[in-house]
Amino acid sequence: MIILDKVIEVRKEIKTASKNAKTIGLVPTMGFLHDGHLSLIKRAREENDLVVVSIFVNPTQFGPGEDLESYPRNLERDSSLAESAGADIIFAPSVEEIYPNGYNTYVEVEGEMTKKLCGASRPGHFKGVATVVSKLFNIIAPDRAYFGQKDAQQVAVIEQIVRDLNFDIEIVSCPIVREKDGLAMSSRNIYLNEDERKDAVILSQSLFEAEKMIKNGERDPLKLKEFIIKNINTKPNVEIDYVEIVNSKTLEDVKEIKGDVLIALAVKIGRARLIDNICMEVQ
Amino acid sequence: MIILDKVIEVRKEIKTASKNAKTIGLVPTMGFLHDGHLSLIKRAREENDLVVVSIFVNPTQFGPGEDLESYPRNLERDSSLAESAGADIIFAPSVEEIYPNGYNTYVEVEGEMTKKLCGASRPGHFKGVATVVSKLFNIIAPDRAYFGQKDAQQVAVIEQIVRDLNFDIEIVSCPIVREKDGLAMSSRNIYLNEDERKDAVILSQSLFEAEKMIKNGERDPLKLKEFIIKNINTKPNVEIDYVEIVNSKTLEDVKEIKGDVLIALAVKIGRARLIDNICMEVQ
Repeated sequence: MIILDKVIEVRKEIKTASKNAKTIGLVPTMGFLHDGHLSLIKRAREENDLVVVSIFVNPTQFGPGEDLESYPRNLERDSSLAESAGADIIFAPSVEEIYPNGYNTYVEVEGEMTKKLCGASRPGHFKGVATVVSKLFNIIAPDRAYFGQKDAQQVAVIEQIVRDLNFDIEIVSCPIVREKDGLAMSSRNIYLNEDERKDAVILSQSLFEAEKMIKNGERDPLKLKEFIIKNINTKPNVEIDYVEIVNSKTLEDVKEIKGDVLIALAVKIGRARLIDNICMEVQ
Repeated sequence: MIILDKVIEVRKEIKTASKNAKTIGLVPTMGFLHDGHLSLIKRAREENDLVVVSIFVNPTQFGPGEDLESYPRNLERDSSLAESAGADIIFAPSVEEIYPNGYNTYVEVEGEMTKKLCGASRPGHFKGVATVVSKLFNIIAPDRAYFGQKDAQQVAVIEQIVRDLNFDIEIVSCPIVREKDGLAMSSRNIYLNEDERKDAVILSQSLFEAEKMIKNGERDPLKLKEFIIKNINTKPNVEIDYVEIVNSKTLEDVKEIKGDVLIALAVKIGRARLIDNICMEVQ
């Protein structure tokens, strides 16, 4: 495995490698890898001849006052984990390499899709995501790109970009990987102290309960939402950002639990803002 | 030569052809081809194994009240001209093929570059250009793309997109092709009646005079601008949109005629809005 930090180098390496490699898989990450990321890398390893993992804490997807500076970074640890999961190339560019002096071009999905859920509390977030992902797609030119379903809205936005801008890339969305008690893995879980970590289990627990209610016949999104909010609010130190029930492809609100349903939520616990979701196909 | 109107078809055709073709040249046009376009196709033919010409009157680069509906179209004539100039594939999609139902993703160069010159009188124009060109780049995946220097601001914007979004494509900017009397070739020249056609020569004539003044030592952009405006205004039916003297790469205003200088202008004659420019390297 090799680690590169320049666009020109990674492009050259990929051109050389792709003489033998028929397919290229890209796993875009912000680093501080956990088992969720590793599941993406392993999946990419199974499905492609060449696996590229990008590690870049993308400043344009952070808003003012967010955790850009404190976001955890550890390239040495990440490299060794990525290698063990099957990465061939790590692309870990500097901010200046991705956004050089005079940088001015942005990709944006307009409309409701990027304005609700995380888009409402993080304006500009998906514009930053869309821009950096488009750049990575052009730099690496992968056949497949792997994203975690934990960022369900991000997956929907990226699928829209690929469709709209005609990227010839298959988006592979992989299941959420969870801790034993159910907490969705996240690089931001490191922000939690011991008590907060215990409280954080309420997120997945509420989602699993809602899932059960749906399996038992509940079809009213308002009742499910109300239940989840009430359940999360039993923890006094947890502040809800949103709980939404939408179509998982279009992210449009649903009036009835039917078809591709996404229940997504974001909460603040201490200095961590955590997201989680479940995705169901309901008859 | 073949004519295709579906993304999936043109992609398939290019994949088949590129087994033998090492390099692909793309000439994006809005059709109604004239000798300016044909010079781009011929240049692409000389430099590439496969030449793709796209013909698409792109609605997102027209503003309200502009000439989207009346813009001249003639695919049959264009096909025969493009073939004679050396095109292998014509890609002539419908509006629905490029902007299907639910389309919502846009590429935009922010900052001054797209707000001045044509960007000032045509807000949103370069966002439409940036978006459709990004799509064509992703659909055709060319090694080189050819643009006319007549749209000097467009060339600067596209070079910025390529640099910023890491498209692995060489932008080839080709000289303006002119009628015998100096008028820059444009599909919109067809809008001119006989008298307007005669008046239109004042654009290039003013630019050539300004060029002479620079060669004779004039270094003051204000004096040159003043001369051009006065000269154009000798024609009573010609309405100036702008006359600007800027750096040809950055499009920033220049205080002195030095380095890469672009003198660009836009005027309205009858129902035509015409642009022209000269580009000089001044010691």
